[in-house]
Amino acid sequence: MNQKLKIGIIGTGTIGRVHADAYAANPAEAQIEALCDVRAEAVAAEAEKYKVPQQFTDYRQLLKSDVDAVSVCVGNALHRDVAVAALKAGKHVLLEKPMAMNSKEAAEIVAAMKKSGKVLQIGMVTRQHAEVQLARKMVEEGVLGDVYHIRVVLLRRRGIPGMGGWFTTKSMSGGGPLIDVGVHYFDAAMFVAGLWNPTAVSSNTYAKFGPLMKKYRYVSMWAGPPNFKGVFDVEDYATGYVRFGKAASMSFEVSWAVNAEDENYIEILGSKAGVRLLDGKPLKLVTEYKEQVADVMLQYQKTPNIFHVQAKKFLAACRREAPPAATAEQGCTVMKLIDAIYESGRKNSEVKIS
Amino acid sequence: MNQKLKIGIIGTGTIGRVHADAYAANPAEAQIEALCDVRAEAVAAEAEKYKVPQQFTDYRQLLKSDVDAVSVCVGNALHRDVAVAALKAGKHVLLEKPMAMNSKEAAEIVAAMKKSGKVLQIGMVTRQHAEVQLARKMVEEGVLGDVYHIRVVLLRRRGIPGMGGWFTTKSMSGGGPLIDVGVHYFDAAMFVAGLWNPTAVSSNTYAKFGPLMKKYRYVSMWAGPPNFKGVFDVEDYATGYVRFGKAASMSFEVSWAVNAEDENYIEILGSKAGVRLLDGKPLKLVTEYKEQVADVMLQYQKTPNIFHVQAKKFLAACRREAPPAATAEQGCTVMKLIDAIYESGRKNSEVKIS
Amino acid sequence: MNQKLKIGIIGTGTIGRVHADAYAANPAEAQIEALCDVRAEAVAAEAEKYKVPQQFTDYRQLLKSDVDAVSVCVGNALHRDVAVAALKAGKHVLLEKPMAMNSKEAAEIVAAMKKSGKVLQIGMVTRQHAEVQLARKMVEEGVLGDVYHIRVVLLRRRGIPGMGGWFTTKSMSGGGPLIDVGVHYFDAAMFVAGLWNPTAVSSNTYAKFGPLMKKYRYVSMWAGPPNFKGVFDVEDYATGYVRFGKAASMSFEVSWAVNAEDENYIEILGSKAGVRLLDGKPLKLVTEYKEQVADVMLQYQKTPNIFHVQAKKFLAACRREAPPAATAEQGCTVMKLIDAIYESGRKNSEVKIS
Amino acid sequence: MNQKLKIGIIGTGTIGRVHADAYAANPAEAQIEALCDVRAEAVAAEAEKYKVPQQFTDYRQLLKSDVDAVSVCVGNALHRDVAVAALKAGKHVLLEKPMAMNSKEAAEIVAAMKKSGKVLQIGMVTRQHAEVQLARKMVEEGVLGDVYHIRVVLLRRRGIPGMGGWFTTKSMSGGGPLIDVGVHYFDAAMFVAGLWNPTAVSSNTYAKFGPLMKKYRYVSMWAGPPNFKGVFDVEDYATGYVRFGKAASMSFEVSWAVNAEDENYIEILGSKAGVRLLDGKPLKLVTEYKEQVADVMLQYQKTPNIFHVQAKKFLAACRREAPPAATAEQGCTVMKLIDAIYESGRKNSEVKIS
Repeated sequence: MNQKLKIGIIGTGTIGRVHADAYAANPAEAQIEALCDVRAEAVAAEAEKYKVPQQFTDYRQLLKSDVDAVSVCVGNALHRDVAVAALKAGKHVLLEKPMAMNSKEAAEIVAAMKKSGKVLQIGMVTRQHAEVQLARKMVEEGVLGDVYHIRVVLLRRRGIPGMGGWFTTKSMSGGGPLIDVGVHYFDAAMFVAGLWNPTAVSSNTYAKFGPLMKKYRYVSMWAGPPNFKGVFDVEDYATGYVRFGKAASMSFEVSWAVNAEDENYIEILGSKAGVRLLDGKPLKLVTEYKEQVADVMLQYQKTPNIFHVQAKKFLAACRREAPPAATAEQGCTVMKLIDAIYESGRKNSEVKIS
Repeated sequence: MNQKLKIGIIGTGTIGRVHADAYAANPAEAQIEALCDVRAEAVAAEAEKYKVPQQFTDYRQLLKSDVDAVSVCVGNALHRDVAVAALKAGKHVLLEKPMAMNSKEAAEIVAAMKKSGKVLQIGMVTRQHAEVQLARKMVEEGVLGDVYHIRVVLLRRRGIPGMGGWFTTKSMSGGGPLIDVGVHYFDAAMFVAGLWNPTAVSSNTYAKFGPLMKKYRYVSMWAGPPNFKGVFDVEDYATGYVRFGKAASMSFEVSWAVNAEDENYIEILGSKAGVRLLDGKPLKLVTEYKEQVADVMLQYQKTPNIFHVQAKKFLAACRREAPPAATAEQGCTVMKLIDAIYESGRKNSEVKIS
Repeated sequence: MNQKLKIGIIGTGTIGRVHADAYAANPAEAQIEALCDVRAEAVAAEAEKYKVPQQFTDYRQLLKSDVDAVSVCVGNALHRDVAVAALKAGKHVLLEKPMAMNSKEAAEIVAAMKKSGKVLQIGMVTRQHAEVQLARKMVEEGVLGDVYHIRVVLLRRRGIPGMGGWFTTKSMSGGGPLIDVGVHYFDAAMFVAGLWNPTAVSSNTYAKFGPLMKKYRYVSMWAGPPNFKGVFDVEDYATGYVRFGKAASMSFEVSWAVNAEDENYIEILGSKAGVRLLDGKPLKLVTEYKEQVADVMLQYQKTPNIFHVQAKKFLAACRREAPPAATAEQGCTVMKLIDAIYESGRKNSEVKIS
Repeated sequence: MNQKLKIGIIGTGTIGRVHADAYAANPAEAQIEALCDVRAEAVAAEAEKYKVPQQFTDYRQLLKSDVDAVSVCVGNALHRDVAVAALKAGKHVLLEKPMAMNSKEAAEIVAAMKKSGKVLQIGMVTRQHAEVQLARKMVEEGVLGDVYHIRVVLLRRRGIPGMGGWFTTKSMSGGGPLIDVGVHYFDAAMFVAGLWNPTAVSSNTYAKFGPLMKKYRYVSMWAGPPNFKGVFDVEDYATGYVRFGKAASMSFEVSWAVNAEDENYIEILGSKAGVRLLDGKPLKLVTEYKEQVADVMLQYQKTPNIFHVQAKKFLAACRREAPPAATAEQGCTVMKLIDAIYESGRKNSEVKIS
């Protein structure tokens, strides 16, 4: 492991700083060589913190530098352009979620990756939770038997982020909670279940809270305060049913705002065991044991920092020691699923996924 | 209320005896005049208990008697024949759930009802829980605003009834948990939401436990013990997504057996408030209050016996003092929904409901 | 199972009435033929309730009747005399706990049993809890591996029964909480662990509350009210350490009164799994699963009434269809253990058990 | 308090660095003058951090310097040699736990202390928790009445430290969890109870997990990773019963590995009140109040850092302003107790303590 990769980070907002912290936590494997953001002062502050030699305000300039790999942490609407340019420039890419604004853009990124031969990893960091990895191991080892249904529940009662800002403006974000947090849960659900072939979606999206703007009541606001002159043209609730061929299915409920209690989990139902993840409780297999109906509580060490693990796996992938922790093809599948969810809502009927 | 109705009960199994108890609890309004069952000794025992003058082993003979109304408590496969005959004979009918084996049979019953001019009430007794009635009142008064999604969860971990008996034999029961318990929750959900126009269903049914027969592990068995020489040809798990036009939707998960913890509820999501019912907890409106995000806990008196209430309402309907507590048209809608759920599973695609 | 046994019950106090109820719950297998108590009016009341033809105030007279089997439910000090007389009279015996006042008496009962050839079952009813039986099954099947330590905790904060009455008078009871409730837990612990060879005891007993008599503060008193003119000459707390050869050990803490919170459990520690019983929580194996440290929660149906089960097993033993649910030899081992606990306290040093 | 003591620290491993931090937190009373470790680079790093003028790799050289007092933080096997040499050299000594490998070594240290006239304090830091000090105060003031039993429970489910390293090698550590963590709880228990006269022990030790080496499953390992070529020849579980004359007793269960949930506490049972310590819950007296059975919750400020308090008390003792926070005689008693526990296990019978 004597190869220390030179890293560039494009975008030094909240998530870009998280990436910087993650590379800095792996000093034997990586050094942050370059930073880029349109806000020069943000670049300077971050550069001082991590002793970063090269600073840019134009990502195209950064891509001309000698960095080996880049983290793409820009706004969703720029994911495609920056990722494609980086791959063309011969850089490995760790691309933040959502992979792109839609599956068409995602496919363009995949094509660029294939042409470049470089490593592309998608920022599906929820997978790196120890309980998700452990559940995946249980499925792989056959402990769950045939997996035939997945329940995805990700309900925030009042959690619209940055009302009126880029999060709630479709042309900048690509969508609402589906794009913001749904991608993590869909990815983790398909990853654990080992089901990457969604074939059809029946769904709908609703917006009952966001359009109220000033009359939207909340307790606290992430990425706030609200900008009442801004736009809310995305969903605040989405629900539906996904087929994986005939053998399996997935139901989902995802919200930024709903008149229901906060509730989060992914539940995987198998013929031999079931498991509920990410619900803030210990991991429990609902199953049988010695021919008795039984629950099995698995002990495990929590992942201290999922971003550190993600960065470490990306670095290993760049060194060609392991595949990317989340592949471009998987990211593309998630985007196809989300496109189909929106389309099924618009058409008010089931939509097939090719 | 000086009109004391003469009642006949056809079928004196478990549910028939519950009906007898319910009429007996309303002695000022009803007297049990006749009982019928193919098992003469069962009729005799029940007749002694309630001092019932007329006993029959052929329901056609009972229908020739002077009873004003009958409870139809026979096996599912006979619901249509007995209900139609009773209506033709000029009797009011309280018909146990499921209304029939399918929507075609249900439609025949509705036609017979219309022709006869008699009262037909369906045994949708779950509606009579005080919390269900109270939630309906909240929706009617606009407290929930626009209702746009319903979540139906009715998961039994190990609850296959009478493995190998009539419950698990499709030709006798019409289906598995959808027919057995799902009908109650679908009826209660549409009743509370006031949504009686399901327009499309995407769903699937699975049977992962029942077919194991002897290898099915359980803690206790209702309507047991198992008959391993019998048949299991129904579903043990069903899940899917229902559209009510474009404005609203319903997701459901119903099981007799699944590797998940027992979980029961109907949740109604509205633009102004949401409510979760039948989960064994106090009724709570998830809403706003005085421009604050707030929960509102509604106090109410639990219904001591829902069957007593059902009988009382049926008697009032027979006296033309009120409409039936659950109408034939509503029962028919539930059967159409269930037909479509099975069909969508078979076709592996969305099915429209006319 | 056409043999319906004629039962006599000697002693119609609280526990005698529980036995009567248990036989009455098994009407196909037993009929209560005779009752005996020195209080004739108590016998009469009970006889009327269960339609019992023969009534006695002298157990020797009852033993001359044609009953097949007797329940011995008299005071502890009479257990030996009545049980020996019943066996000599050719009756099967269900003998309440504690088996006797001490191991010497217990040995006399065992000798009488062997001479008579009749069935003797000890009233160790705690064993009949479903969780105890299930834990025993787990040990038998090797799920726990080598069992090497047992923790018995049975702490009542303020639970002296009938202060000043027979419970607290050593000449009538044989001892305090060790004899009253400790016997149940020692029996259940050795039963589950399959360890019936206690070889040495180091222990002590204390009486810090009972001797206070009027100054003993409590919330409620079983078998009360207190008789301050009576005697308290037994322990109210006992603790110690038991060896089962060199391979295993047991620690115990048993109280009627202690300045500690109520706490009940038997914990069995094995090389492959451990289990804690009778603590009012679901049964949980602390173990490994698929090479992961894990807890396993076993589902099971609770025993509705342990006395009914005990009676049923006694009746089966009388019919020679199964061994007694708790043998005389096991009862004798429990008494030896308790004798040694008292002796170790008196001598203030370890005592060997032969 | 104008006397600023010059301190030497012998051993700059984990615990040595904790001592350095503690002295540095008391800058008005102490200055770290010298450091010693066989690893020169570890000394250098630590010396730079605290600006320590003198550095050594041989403790005998350090003992020739002008330090007033030393912390002895070397491996257990060297405690006796270093402590005796330091006392002979006229230094006050703060000696880490366990005091020595066994009571014979401990006695040699006590003899050296007496001869030197210097202060010797043992690193029994658990005593410094505010709840332990408060419980001691309650006992001293008679609030608990007669203390007659102590329960020590210190169960780690999977906590073998540094499998195959010095912790698990008897010739280097002196023993397993008894020596590693048991000493803290025994010391704290006897300190609170004021019982320093253990007279006999019945006990056993077991090793069911450690000898499995590679097959030992765990979640995380302190002082890891494991060295499978190393040795595990100590206990992983110990349990037994201790007499303090005839008036009081102590039961204990101590493990590094056991198939039971993690559980920690010291419980002191007195005739007037009982108290459970170190269980992670608020301190509660189980007692009576105004002639009512009652719990009393004592409020207190947690000790922010027990090592800082320990160092402060040691410095005060060096200035002869107070006795040592834990005396050599007490340390010696703990070692005698542990010797007896091992011996009782080997002999499989009770062992007297002189």
